[in-house]
Amino acid sequence: MNADNVPDIIIGRLPVYLRALQRMSEKGMKTTSSQELGEHVGISAAQIRKDISQFGEFGKQGTGYAVPFLIDKLRGILKVNRMWDVAVIGAGELGHALSRYQGFTDRGFRVIFVFDSDPSKIGKRVGEFVVEDSAKIVECIRGANIKIAMLTVPAAAAQAVTDQLVQAGVKAILNYAPISLNVPEGVHVQYIDPANHLQRMTYYL
Amino acid sequence: MNADNVPDIIIGRLPVYLRALQRMSEKGMKTTSSQELGEHVGISAAQIRKDISQFGEFGKQGTGYAVPFLIDKLRGILKVNRMWDVAVIGAGELGHALSRYQGFTDRGFRVIFVFDSDPSKIGKRVGEFVVEDSAKIVECIRGANIKIAMLTVPAAAAQAVTDQLVQAGVKAILNYAPISLNVPEGVHVQYIDPANHLQRMTYYL
Repeated sequence: MNADNVPDIIIGRLPVYLRALQRMSEKGMKTTSSQELGEHVGISAAQIRKDISQFGEFGKQGTGYAVPFLIDKLRGILKVNRMWDVAVIGAGELGHALSRYQGFTDRGFRVIFVFDSDPSKIGKRVGEFVVEDSAKIVECIRGANIKIAMLTVPAAAAQAVTDQLVQAGVKAILNYAPISLNVPEGVHVQYIDPANHLQRMTYYL
Repeated sequence: MNADNVPDIIIGRLPVYLRALQRMSEKGMKTTSSQELGEHVGISAAQIRKDISQFGEFGKQGTGYAVPFLIDKLRGILKVNRMWDVAVIGAGELGHALSRYQGFTDRGFRVIFVFDSDPSKIGKRVGEFVVEDSAKIVECIRGANIKIAMLTVPAAAAQAVTDQLVQAGVKAILNYAPISLNVPEGVHVQYIDPANHLQRMTYYL
């Protein structure tokens, strides 16, 4: 179960499986098969079996997977069998939406800070948060031992904020700013840029 | 330049290159090298040269790439050398943010419809739009010949709305609902689910 041994493309599919299994569980399903799971996520049964078998023998020939057991295993592998505190940087419309999003807590994440550099936003309430001054990013994040941040600042500000986050000990950044970030080894970045995602599809139209 | 011949993983990197080149261009840069571009996007120069060479000889040994020329070529390859009309389904906080997002137009997209099924939202203004009744999705989207939609409805509603979008002729869906969608051959889906992106990183923490 060494992180270096499993291709990242497989790691990327595990949250998709976990999400589908959690929905099955909410509907009261106790068991599933790779065929059934495959129909839910649009991935072949063979691929699912191969992906999951990288981490152990979690299913049985004939009876398939016990849903709560597989959920438990995947949450352990993805390290979301705990709650991660998350900081949101940027209290614009997207930062608001993320800080109020109800879908994080049952998947291992809770927002505990929202930062902005705009004096007109600092001190204002966003849901249950008060917007903190971006000048306090390093102090607050280090103090709360936060390892994960979501970045919703303008592109022009994103690298400077990233440097602060890295300095504060953040190891995973979900970047909504439309720009590539430079981070040192050991800091992970995932990108969400709707225009990029759309362009990836228009190629095929 | 057949869509079937180039691996999708390469197609996925082209919007990243284009975005970086557009930022270079805004800063007045006329030429760049694969080394320089690579430093901006965090991808090796060799990989960039290999990716771009799939589509032709766009650079010169020694002098590198002409920025406006390469932008033009990439926009052509990704088919964003035109403006695509886009429908947003779901006028919640995220739908609002997307419909007002200023970053689409210079990358080939403009939102022209926002739909919601909530009677308290239908007819309300969202930026420059009036929220349309979701009951009119097929009629409006077919009438305007829209091929691209962004889906921000709750997970429980997402598949039913997707079926309507497909019926209306939509060929590309950017899905923010935290659920996998079933679509027929020839319809493309990209997924944005922040919890999935975060879980993909916690694996490595």
